[in-house]
Amino acid sequence: MESHNYRFAFAYDGTAFKGWQRLSGKARTVQGVIETALSRIVGTTVEIAGSGRTDSGVHAAGQVANARLPAIPDLERFLKRLDAELPEDIACLGVERAAANFHARFSAVEKTYRYLVHDGKRRDPFSTRYAHHLTERLDLDAMRAAVAELVGKRDFTSLTNLKPGDKSFVRDLRSIAVTRDGDFVSMEFVADGFLYNQVRIMAGALIEAGLGSLTPDRLRRVVDARDRSQAPGAAPAKGLRLESVRY
Amino acid sequence: MESHNYRFAFAYDGTAFKGWQRLSGKARTVQGVIETALSRIVGTTVEIAGSGRTDSGVHAAGQVANARLPAIPDLERFLKRLDAELPEDIACLGVERAAANFHARFSAVEKTYRYLVHDGKRRDPFSTRYAHHLTERLDLDAMRAAVAELVGKRDFTSLTNLKPGDKSFVRDLRSIAVTRDGDFVSMEFVADGFLYNQVRIMAGALIEAGLGSLTPDRLRRVVDARDRSQAPGAAPAKGLRLESVRY
Repeated sequence: MESHNYRFAFAYDGTAFKGWQRLSGKARTVQGVIETALSRIVGTTVEIAGSGRTDSGVHAAGQVANARLPAIPDLERFLKRLDAELPEDIACLGVERAAANFHARFSAVEKTYRYLVHDGKRRDPFSTRYAHHLTERLDLDAMRAAVAELVGKRDFTSLTNLKPGDKSFVRDLRSIAVTRDGDFVSMEFVADGFLYNQVRIMAGALIEAGLGSLTPDRLRRVVDARDRSQAPGAAPAKGLRLESVRY
Repeated sequence: MESHNYRFAFAYDGTAFKGWQRLSGKARTVQGVIETALSRIVGTTVEIAGSGRTDSGVHAAGQVANARLPAIPDLERFLKRLDAELPEDIACLGVERAAANFHARFSAVEKTYRYLVHDGKRRDPFSTRYAHHLTERLDLDAMRAAVAELVGKRDFTSLTNLKPGDKSFVRDLRSIAVTRDGDFVSMEFVADGFLYNQVRIMAGALIEAGLGSLTPDRLRRVVDARDRSQAPGAAPAKGLRLESVRY
């Protein structure tokens, strides 16, 4: 039977998932739920490859994945069928035929993540799943001053929970935009790729900067040290969302 | 022991509650959860009165309630204590001493409800708890034309699930603002009070108008008939939120 490589876009609320990656046993994962839905539709086992693994509790507005599937005659109809099979917390945003050598992870050239903080004095039950709540106000000027110590092509050994090995820890962090909308502060990170937990650790550092407990000078020394033990803790998963992947 | 009347403001995500009103048995209700939290703090049974009962699944950004409690020496400290006792899906926004005759329900002079529709072509997992999803686009001009048939001091017998009795079904519906922000359409209803399910039934009617299946002329005849059986169905609870109560 003829088969092709297909490219998908998904959005999901990560709250009720044990992350992206399929796990053995009963753990509910995004990849596992999507593969089950696809397998039900095409009638054979399907494996999809995501652009990257999001952690437990991390969200996505534009996760990309690819899978080899029996030829799909009507893509719009297939999308509707898939979307109907998926639970409320995952939506399929699009499906298209991709080049045979397209791979959601290895073909990616740029990723954008957003970290969201709610710094209103009172809790907000409507954003509690999507934003990290602080009762103290963040100082955006201080955060922007710290951004300068992170942006650029650097060795990010200090800012990942990946264990040192023989792979490069150099990434090109192209921009970090820090903006405020009322009681919400958004940090948008754009890079050619990110190391394990890197965005959450950088968000944690910028939050400390915004609270006045981490100076740009100190952050520079942390980065230069190439030593994870010097860095601030990772900000909670729920504030993080994979926005988009560029190919 | 000295006691006073206190006024509270609460926000809650109604998704995991069986509505506002305390129920016997194990049903999780907003009133029940708040009363349990208050009772733990003051050490005696507490009863609170809300401005009105929100249905199962309906949210609130500014629900008001009052309760008679032993004198509270430090209101800010009390609020923090209460907020810490409450689960993630309810927040206490404020507490203040009220006049002895203040009653959250009987003293209210105006209420504002918002109904939210998401009419983007694809599902959005981040608004699925808070917006009713339609795959067809709403026509706001058609909705605004229908608004004219609802606003004013009228008998709303046709637009409530309250059974006819000896109480008045006349309410003063002061305004309905229909606005679009991207793929979200908001309907904001302001009135001196609302009948049971009235906002959801009016939202259902305006949605039908926006989809082209209910003309202003037909809506006028439905209202004039004072007969519930003629009206459109109620829109789903999850799109509804009590915004504020005026005293």
